[in-house]
Formats: sequence, structure tokens, C-alpha cells
Amino acid sequence: MQDSLTSSAKRRTIISVDAMGGDRGPAAVVAGIALSAKENPDIGFILHGPKDELERLMTRKKVLEGRVEIRHATGIVTMEDKPSHIVRHGRETSMWSALESVRSGEAAVCVSCGNTGALMALSMLRLRKLEGVNRPAIAVLWPSRNPQGFNVMLDVGADIRADEHDLLQYALMGASYARNGMQLEIPRVGLLNVGTEEHKGRAELKLAHDLIAQNAERGKYRFVGFVEGGDIPGDTADVIVTDGFTGNTALKTGEGTAKLIGDLLKQAFKFSPLSRLASVLAYTSMQRLKKRIDPRRVNGGVFLGLNGTVVKSHGSADATGISAAVKLAFQLAHSGFGERLAARVALVEQAKPDAPTDKGTTE
Amino acid sequence: MQDSLTSSAKRRTIISVDAMGGDRGPAAVVAGIALSAKENPDIGFILHGPKDELERLMTRKKVLEGRVEIRHATGIVTMEDKPSHIVRHGRETSMWSALESVRSGEAAVCVSCGNTGALMALSMLRLRKLEGVNRPAIAVLWPSRNPQGFNVMLDVGADIRADEHDLLQYALMGASYARNGMQLEIPRVGLLNVGTEEHKGRAELKLAHDLIAQNAERGKYRFVGFVEGGDIPGDTADVIVTDGFTGNTALKTGEGTAKLIGDLLKQAFKFSPLSRLASVLAYTSMQRLKKRIDPRRVNGGVFLGLNGTVVKSHGSADATGISAAVKLAFQLAHSGFGERLAARVALVEQAKPDAPTDKGTTE
Repeated sequence: MQDSLTSSAKRRTIISVDAMGGDRGPAAVVAGIALSAKENPDIGFILHGPKDELERLMTRKKVLEGRVEIRHATGIVTMEDKPSHIVRHGRETSMWSALESVRSGEAAVCVSCGNTGALMALSMLRLRKLEGVNRPAIAVLWPSRNPQGFNVMLDVGADIRADEHDLLQYALMGASYARNGMQLEIPRVGLLNVGTEEHKGRAELKLAHDLIAQNAERGKYRFVGFVEGGDIPGDTADVIVTDGFTGNTALKTGEGTAKLIGDLLKQAFKFSPLSRLASVLAYTSMQRLKKRIDPRRVNGGVFLGLNGTVVKSHGSADATGISAAVKLAFQLAHSGFGERLAARVALVEQAKPDAPTDKGTTE
Repeated sequence: MQDSLTSSAKRRTIISVDAMGGDRGPAAVVAGIALSAKENPDIGFILHGPKDELERLMTRKKVLEGRVEIRHATGIVTMEDKPSHIVRHGRETSMWSALESVRSGEAAVCVSCGNTGALMALSMLRLRKLEGVNRPAIAVLWPSRNPQGFNVMLDVGADIRADEHDLLQYALMGASYARNGMQLEIPRVGLLNVGTEEHKGRAELKLAHDLIAQNAERGKYRFVGFVEGGDIPGDTADVIVTDGFTGNTALKTGEGTAKLIGDLLKQAFKFSPLSRLASVLAYTSMQRLKKRIDPRRVNGGVFLGLNGTVVKSHGSADATGISAAVKLAFQLAHSGFGERLAARVALVEQAKPDAPTDKGTTE
């Protein structure tokens, strides 16, 4: 259903976008959706935020004409707001409004670059968890040595713990994401640990190891067993499963390391006249490399395990980053990913036979 | 005591080196200590492994003449050996023998590139934990934006859990390491979490936050509070404290990401005739960058919290890596680091007043 919504005249996929709450304000968001609109004629938007301000920002963007519906919302969720506060008092915010468009079925996917904790809390409140899912997860794409160029890692949501059942669900959801987002028929799933030997690691990891192995066929993935931090950008697995604390730390460590190397590289190119000349000659090659590992290009954590898809863009995303998040949202909407994931989880969780299977979805 | 050992003729600092158990075998180890011997005339070695093989490898290295004493040991700890097995049956191994030289006081520091788990288990068995230390830790140096070029992170030892008292001890030991290894008088200590807000994270982290804050003056560090994964290569703290599971994952993620970028960079330089020319022009700048972030240059996890210092070199270390580990071992021996750390821990743990303080060490 979600991927077949139509705007009045043309058949467009509608993305609900929270214009507020990012570090660069609504101007970056409007610039980002304008980029997306230019690239892809099949996207339409519902944009949430203060009407006057958004209209003013949009006057400069001809490409958005007739493709954006503004939903007025005065409240803004800041990065400092506690999720529990927003759940109780956030009804007037652009974030709440943006989720509402997915809840009502008007939009296929919600994109926000606001406060992650608040976005997850509101998503759970308004969209509700999928039947059979105990703990939704946030999945990210990570540059890797695999042919598809990326691996999926989840959970990176800073959740404090995950037990073996949660980790099994992450495996199912991650595999479904890899299948629909990266066209991998049988994704390889690895479970993050501090060693690849089966006797190592925390008790819940050993239990999860067995559970994930047992459900490989039903979940339509291949389980490669324990993997280590070095495999996150590696080629031994396509999906890396871990708890939210470890995943969040790994994500930020990897980003920080990549950024440090990038900055040192820039310095190195400025060091001498020869190296400055070199930087000119290497320009296109370097741009290609930069594009390959630029976190803005893979901007967007996806919330998995909810009745509706939510893409969390980086708080500091600029127009390029926002546009990448919108592109991801479009791809997911287009693949009917939400329904497929729900069906897969239901299959493994052995939900009641009259529940999701009658929709005829097969993965 | 440890830093004043003398060899027969000259006043040399003796390093005990396990020649076996690394991925590249004893040839890399002998080549590595030869590099160190050439650079630093004040180092002597006790080398542990099969006598005939080591003597054969050494005949080609003139610089090692008169500076190496071989201790014959036939057994080898492999990467697959379980630590518990080695503790019971490892008496004939080169690793056991290498630790014995530190235990007896003949050598100041032990260096091994063998199995980490076995090395830690044997170190705890033979050297024993420092009074007041519950859980020894492994600390690594990480390339960072700080003026000293590196941060200390601990524990990276793959330990399953650490409670608030363990984390406090890591803070004390890490600060002592930073003070003696990087000449930072008052190192800044950060506690790794999934957010910098004080209400976030696991219960033991909140408790550790308060404990580490309370002991800052006695521990001679400044506590900067919670830090995130991005701060490990950053400049907000000099010492990053975390549990062994998270630290190990972060370490391997960072290494993997750096290696991926390095390989992509090489590809980029080979892409076109122009970029190949650029790589020639940028050669010295690139070599400087490579040196700055080359993990072999900072090769060596240091075991902290034992009666004796142990440097764990990377299993895959080549001669350059081994030599870096020996250099680190020498620096630590030279600074009297072991005694200073013991005194600092004792001070905070409020050990009996007649215990380590009568040695007159002040940090």
C-alpha cells in the first residue's frame, strides 16, 4: 500500500519531511528536497514546520512548485529535549506532524534530521511496533569492501541492552533491509563479538548465535557466525548485528576515524608546492574516493520494526545529506520494504496464521 | 627498580621478548629487535624460543652481537590455544619463559606478539595483579587530533564486563600511562558512552561517572565526563575509559575503517595516468601521513594493573611493528612507569599506609 500512494495528478511517492530540528535549520532541508526533486520526478513531499518560513524558503526553488504540501507546525524538537518530555508535550511539533503523515497513510516514509531519541520515542508511540517485534532498531549503511559497496549494521540506536531475542529480530530485519535496499537475495549475517571463536563473549551472544543460526532458512539469510569490529567495513558479512550501545560506539568511532584521516589527507596535500600540484592532478580520483566514503552519501539511519518506515538523517546534514536520506526513503518505499519486513518477522515469530500472511507478501 | 637493571658491561635496559607465536614467526621478531638495537644502544634483550632456530636467525644480524641472551623454550602458544589450557600446560612455552624474566627481575618489560588471551591469563598467573586492582586492562594508543598525536584508550582487552570500580581503576591507570608515556602532566579523562548527557547510558556508567569525578584530584587527572566514539580520535580527552568489549570493538572498527580508506586511496592513485603522476608528486606527503596513522607505528597494547609491564604487539606485526613495541617497552621501563602506576592506584584505593607509599614514589 505504502508505495502506491498517488498525488493528485501524477503517480508520485510521497515522502513526509520534518523541516525542523536539524543543526542547519530548514534552509538546508528545503535545499535538500529541491535536489531530490530535480533528480527524481516521481517524488512528492509533505513538509512540516512553520508555514511562513517554509514558504519563503521555497519561493527560490522552482523545481518544488506543485510538489510540496506544507503542514503548519510551530513546535520544534531540539537536540537537548528529553524523549520522555516530547512524548508527553510534543503534539505541536513538526516531528510529530511528520510522523502523523505516515501514520495516516498519506506518506510512505518519514524523514527527519532531528533528535534521534525523541524521533524513536515518538515513532514507537505513533506508529507502534510491528507485531512480534520487542525492540525496534536503527540500521545504517557502512562503506565496505563488499561488491555492493556497503554493509548494513544494526542496532546503532544507543539502546542500553539487547537480549538474544532482540538480536535475532535485528538479524531478520537487517537481512530484509539488505535484500530490499541492496538487492542481495541471500544476505550474509554476522553477529558482532570480540572474537570469532564460538566460546568467546557474553552469554546472550552465545544464545543469539544459536538462535540466529537456527532461523537462517526461514529468515532467508546465511549466518556466518561471529564477526569482529574489523568486519564492519569488511567483506565477510553484509549485515552486522549488534546491540545499540556497541553499534552506536562503533558507528561514531568509524566516522571519527574516517574524518580524521580525511582532514590529515587535506593537510598532506597542502604541505608543499609539489603536493599541492599533486592534489590538482589527483582531483577527480580523490573526488571519486570522497564520494565513496562520504558519510553524507549514505546519510540515513532507518528505523526498523515499526508500522511505517522512518529515515533518521544526520543532525548536521546539509542539502546533499538530506537529499541522500530522501533518496533512501524513496527506494525503501518503492520496494515495498515495510510490508516485506513485517511478513518476514511474522513468519519467524510464528504469528497467528490469519495475521500478516494473507497480504500475499513473500519476503 | 625495574628501570635500573644493568647488563654485564653497560647499563642497558633489558627487554624480555617472546620470539614465537606471532603470525610472521621468529624471523620478523629477530628483524624487529635488530631494528631497535640499531636505533637505541641502551637496549638489551632476553629472547625466548627454540635456541637453534633463533641462533640461526641472529647470525645475519651483526647489531645484535653481545646484546641478546637466548632462553631456550620449545613450546609455542598458538592463536587457537585456549587461555585456560595454556595456564595449566604452558610451562614449556616461550611466552611463559618471557614472562618469567620479568617476574625474576632480570628484564624490565615483556614483549610478545602471541595470543592475547593466553598472554593476559599467564601474566595474571605469574606476575599477579597489583594490590587494589580487580581487573587488569589493556591500553592502546590511538591516532588523534590532540597535540601529542595520540590518545590512550582502555580497556580493549575483550573482557566481557567492567563495573564502576573497574572503570575507576582504568581511569587511574590510563591517566598514569598518559602521564608517563606521553608527558601529559594532568591528562584529561573521558568515559565512553552513547551520549554526552549525564542521564544517558548504562547504570554502571552513571556510577562510574561519579566515582571518576570524585577521584580526579587524587588520580591527578581532569575528568571531562562522558565522551562518544567520535572522541576516541578527537581532542576532547587524552584518555578514553571503557569496558573491554566496547573498547575492543571500537579498536577493531577503527583499524578496519582506516585500512579500508588506505586501500581505496591506493586504488584512487592508480586510477588514471594523471593520478599516477600525482601519486609520485605527493609521495613524501603521503608517506608522512601514512606514518602518522600507520597502526604499526603505535604497535603495542600495554597490560596495566600487574606487578610488571607487558607489551602485547599485534599478532601480524612485521619487523617495523615489533620494533615499535620494543620502543614503547623501553620508554615505559625508562620512566619507572610500573612503580608510579602502582603508587597511584594504592593512593586512591587507600591501601594500608605502610604499603607502597614508603618507596617514595610520587605518582
